[in-house]
Amino acid sequence: MKELKRAVLEKGIVVGDDILKVDMFLNHRIDTGLALAMGNYIADYFREKSPNIIFTIEASGIAIAITTAIALENIPVVFAKKTAASNQGADRLYANVHSFTKNKDYLVSVERDYLPSGSCVLIVDDFLANGEAMRGLIKITEYANCKLCGAAVAIEKAFQSGGRELRSQGVDLLSLCKIKSIGNDEIILED
Amino acid sequence: MKELKRAVLEKGIVVGDDILKVDMFLNHRIDTGLALAMGNYIADYFREKSPNIIFTIEASGIAIAITTAIALENIPVVFAKKTAASNQGADRLYANVHSFTKNKDYLVSVERDYLPSGSCVLIVDDFLANGEAMRGLIKITEYANCKLCGAAVAIEKAFQSGGRELRSQGVDLLSLCKIKSIGNDEIILED
Repeated sequence: MKELKRAVLEKGIVVGDDILKVDMFLNHRIDTGLALAMGNYIADYFREKSPNIIFTIEASGIAIAITTAIALENIPVVFAKKTAASNQGADRLYANVHSFTKNKDYLVSVERDYLPSGSCVLIVDDFLANGEAMRGLIKITEYANCKLCGAAVAIEKAFQSGGRELRSQGVDLLSLCKIKSIGNDEIILED
Repeated sequence: MKELKRAVLEKGIVVGDDILKVDMFLNHRIDTGLALAMGNYIADYFREKSPNIIFTIEASGIAIAITTAIALENIPVVFAKKTAASNQGADRLYANVHSFTKNKDYLVSVERDYLPSGSCVLIVDDFLANGEAMRGLIKITEYANCKLCGAAVAIEKAFQSGGRELRSQGVDLLSLCKIKSIGNDEIILED
């Protein structure tokens, strides 16, 4: 997706060998116009599959999830939570996720009622690297007896294995910007 | 705001004496149409003050922050983060916040560059009770030398002190739905 690729190349900052900092427009400060454009792009790609729930994970996925939901005639957004608060209901679906950025495991969970059995679920997230978070969301989608109609991420680090593995398992995965390599202050995109 | 009040009365669940569970439409599963309507309502109220940044806190504030930003001609959204990840920059502004829901203190922080000095900041969040999170966001707005043009929350627990204190300090605070009392499975709204 042209606008996102341009933002990554113009504004993205390489930190060390494998961290791409894009939080000036994607996941700390959000460029609202770009988020709307990404939502429209994702919606156009998946519209014919008729998703009726957008599923994401707090916090950085929520902005694109909302704009995708708006473009799909205001279908609801459900976001998985990372920690248990005292007012959470008892009937929840859980999956374990390892975060390489934060270097720890955590549980993600969703209240079962919010993913009704038989729903057609489109997963949306900001980043895909090793695919840990995405696999957690897919597991929860399966536990809920929902149909996974596809998954979309803003940025895929194509030099890590998550995207390749998910596609080989048959997931219809859309990446708006694929990073071929980063390092030495340089960002190389796939075509 | 009529649509939100109706949703609170029809779908909200009282847990114990002071917890109102509204995560079926506001902060776990998001009713996208309602989020858009709330964003329009907040934008209409604050438009003449010309805010140029929406400021919120992860995770539940992001949805309404985005829809408010869309209604204000796509101004950017900045969300404060609750924990430090390894790829965060060094020049950050911090505030301490106590969460009564999770019963712990935590630091919220923002990268300084994303709240440029002199910006006109509109704070948006889902809930206001004791006002702890809101006070943290206001402190950060001040540290950044920004102007606070106002604050908007979806639901104010008016039986707790946050809203009263903030208004007495001169904050232009908009609540879309004020809860007068909850308990005994009953929710009473202010007019």
